[in-house]
Amino acid sequence: MNKTALVPIAEGSEEIELVNIIDVLRRAGVEVTVASANSDGELQICASRGTKIVADVMLEECANRRYDLIAVPGGLPGSEHLAKHPVLDKLLRDQAAEGKLFAAICAAPALVLSAKGLLAEKTATGHPSFIQSLKAKKIDGAARVVVDGNCVTSQGPGTALDFSLELVEQLCGVVKREEVASPMVLTTTPTAYY
Amino acid sequence: MNKTALVPIAEGSEEIELVNIIDVLRRAGVEVTVASANSDGELQICASRGTKIVADVMLEECANRRYDLIAVPGGLPGSEHLAKHPVLDKLLRDQAAEGKLFAAICAAPALVLSAKGLLAEKTATGHPSFIQSLKAKKIDGAARVVVDGNCVTSQGPGTALDFSLELVEQLCGVVKREEVASPMVLTTTPTAYY
Repeated sequence: MNKTALVPIAEGSEEIELVNIIDVLRRAGVEVTVASANSDGELQICASRGTKIVADVMLEECANRRYDLIAVPGGLPGSEHLAKHPVLDKLLRDQAAEGKLFAAICAAPALVLSAKGLLAEKTATGHPSFIQSLKAKKIDGAARVVVDGNCVTSQGPGTALDFSLELVEQLCGVVKREEVASPMVLTTTPTAYY
Repeated sequence: MNKTALVPIAEGSEEIELVNIIDVLRRAGVEVTVASANSDGELQICASRGTKIVADVMLEECANRRYDLIAVPGGLPGSEHLAKHPVLDKLLRDQAAEGKLFAAICAAPALVLSAKGLLAEKTATGHPSFIQSLKAKKIDGAARVVVDGNCVTSQGPGTALDFSLELVEQLCGVVKREEVASPMVLTTTPTAYY
């Protein structure tokens, strides 16, 4: 059975980050659900640089589902909207409590994960401008991508492809990662593992 | 006055490529028009890995406009749809004839630009799987991004960010390029200039 992933998006999510996650996971055969956090039932969001993206479902429809991965894109005010969404809050807390894979990039490690206390026992990274507000057991501000057990964090749009490939490696293994990366014409940079 | 750019998109365009171009150019203050090549008047396209993206206008509405840059994303069958669109055909030929900036990535240098003869006097690159069908004066298959006068070409999703930043440099200068790149947390790789 295919692995499954939830990618929540909101008004002002960073489009490079969210599209890298969706595209790369789907190249690996992961069944990706793109879910809108809008409060008005609208599937379409306007991303941080104005790209209009249409989600597959509303986040409310995901409340009783389980995923192998929940990956949270950054961007402002996208990360703030995602941080306060009650369905995503419960899904992320359950995911972490069950030891399942959760991930965030850019502003989202600080504004979403650490604001919920989900990095208290993790080494993590995030966007340089949010490192100060990142509440984690340890911060690795130099790493482009950090893996600590079931938690993957990363820095920003420029690291979104590495981050997405690391999610493929975590879900599907390193052979699948290389299989996906090769036709994308990549220069891969190292992940920091804890 | 702000610089202007046209980014044509179609069913099956590569979402990482098209979103990198849009996002990075807008970060630089370029006025970007995302135009749908759909034949049924539908603004929304389904990109190559299923991301649903809504254009700003239909390509037909751009027929009598002029842009400082036309940048063509890759992806299949997106590049094939874009190659045969009559409005884009005229816009690209005029752009090249007037010595203005035009660019393409992945499958698009071969399927769109060189199929129209627009690379006959240019050094260019493209996706490794399309290098054989690239008809250019010279091919630099090793370069991630190639600039030859008013023509910029690049290899694929993994080079889309470098490609987009090079477009910023061409339109707005190297200082703006660095200003945009820095908060994106980048490892920049060199462009090949001819």
